[in-house]
Amino acid sequence: MSSQRATAFVPGHVTAFFSPHPADDPAVAGSRGAGVTLTDGVTVRVSAAAGAGNDETGSRTIDGEAGSIGAVDDVLAEMGAPAADVAVETDIPIGAGFGVSGAAALGAALAANDALDRGRSENDLVRIAHAAEVGRGTGLGDVVAQARGGVPVRLEPGAPGVGELDGVPATARAEYVTFGELSTEAVLGGDTAALSAAGEDALDRLRADPRLPTLMDAARAFASEADLLVPEVAEAIAAVESAGGDAAMAMLGRTVFALGTGLSDAGYDPEACRIDAAGARLVDERGRE
Amino acid sequence: MSSQRATAFVPGHVTAFFSPHPADDPAVAGSRGAGVTLTDGVTVRVSAAAGAGNDETGSRTIDGEAGSIGAVDDVLAEMGAPAADVAVETDIPIGAGFGVSGAAALGAALAANDALDRGRSENDLVRIAHAAEVGRGTGLGDVVAQARGGVPVRLEPGAPGVGELDGVPATARAEYVTFGELSTEAVLGGDTAALSAAGEDALDRLRADPRLPTLMDAARAFASEADLLVPEVAEAIAAVESAGGDAAMAMLGRTVFALGTGLSDAGYDPEACRIDAAGARLVDERGRE
Repeated sequence: MSSQRATAFVPGHVTAFFSPHPADDPAVAGSRGAGVTLTDGVTVRVSAAAGAGNDETGSRTIDGEAGSIGAVDDVLAEMGAPAADVAVETDIPIGAGFGVSGAAALGAALAANDALDRGRSENDLVRIAHAAEVGRGTGLGDVVAQARGGVPVRLEPGAPGVGELDGVPATARAEYVTFGELSTEAVLGGDTAALSAAGEDALDRLRADPRLPTLMDAARAFASEADLLVPEVAEAIAAVESAGGDAAMAMLGRTVFALGTGLSDAGYDPEACRIDAAGARLVDERGRE
Repeated sequence: MSSQRATAFVPGHVTAFFSPHPADDPAVAGSRGAGVTLTDGVTVRVSAAAGAGNDETGSRTIDGEAGSIGAVDDVLAEMGAPAADVAVETDIPIGAGFGVSGAAALGAALAANDALDRGRSENDLVRIAHAAEVGRGTGLGDVVAQARGGVPVRLEPGAPGVGELDGVPATARAEYVTFGELSTEAVLGGDTAALSAAGEDALDRLRADPRLPTLMDAARAFASEADLLVPEVAEAIAAVESAGGDAAMAMLGRTVFALGTGLSDAGYDPEACRIDAAGARLVDERGRE
């Protein structure tokens, strides 16, 4: 029996600051804000046995263990491919502010489209993944940022055709340390007025001066004004600053990220990667040419 | 004396088909159409001696020889950096349909912004390079396509904030052979009514079915309907098709490009590269972290 396979890589995305913009239409809902995409990310492999029925659900694994992500299931359903097998492998921790669920959803959309020859455009696939992520309440802006790569600035919320993006032109090494999870749903489900105001202030600052140091400074101000800073992260940011570096908190996670060797210089033992230049992409693992 | 340097890489872009959309405002002018960006492209190095006066013009080289590109000079002038030294190195032939002038302009914008810490956003830099390219009459859609990477589809003409892009999600090996130059200015300066109609038809087909084989088929129909096919290219396309492959003409150049090993299989000795996933980007050559 023939089988179609495809693989996609989607960069991790640490949000520096944001303001939530809910809406009934998930393609219109989203967030304004900015962040950094990382060469550490999520690889999604989709394979589909030819002729498999659409009434059965394919296997779902995360790092080799049985497990599924809601937004991934919704993407597969939307693409008429629930029977496809989906294997998610992640370089980055789940629930810690790296946008794993958005990356998995977008990777599943790209890989399923290729494996099953669905003939959707890139914008369509981003829209499907964004809607799935918003519908599950697990993120608002990661998918469109991860599709673009680099240092995405979300000028207007929403999926392609609705939202609007810019970017801070930069390449740099990045480091991060994670102290644990923080629930996106809990924060976004609460009173978000102060958070929104802080997010809009931070975006105004970055638009006026689209440079990495301004992004990091605006991110620190946002975490403080939105009252989201947790003690371990605050301590790490202070330690990096004392060592002459530049760090901020990843929204929403108990995670600190730094540019260059900021965390190493401050005595931490961080993961290291780079700003990802490409954004989400299909990966050729079969040498098919 | 201290010196600031930065390097950018911009992929080559072979246009498969297009319709020109002139306008008085160069940010509004542009083209609809689609093409393929290539991992073969243009590297631009900008360096500026601190304190150099703005009334002198810096050195300009192309592949190590003295030489300048109009759109690059215009970008440097717009960024207040005419005194910067600019070295362009290209993997791809000039004047043969790969968008070298657009790539050089966009690379100069990215590298000058970084070297001189100008603090412009990505959209601003793309807009500056697009306007310079349009102003020189050397291209209409390469810059925005090269900024995106992949297989860009130009739904609406113009710079970021005006135009609109989508993409065909695909990764593949690409091959090309060039038989010589074709003047963009001469074609765009003539009667473009038939060309425009053919370009719009091709775009409608690709939007209805955003797959690589459809892109190639629409490109062949465009070249024929717009009466742009030159004999050497027509012969190569036919040879690739006879060998079971998929090839088309690069607009505007005496160049044939093929997917996979199409040209090799047909007995040509092509250059080989891949579809570029990332689009224009800064390159870290100094290990600065």
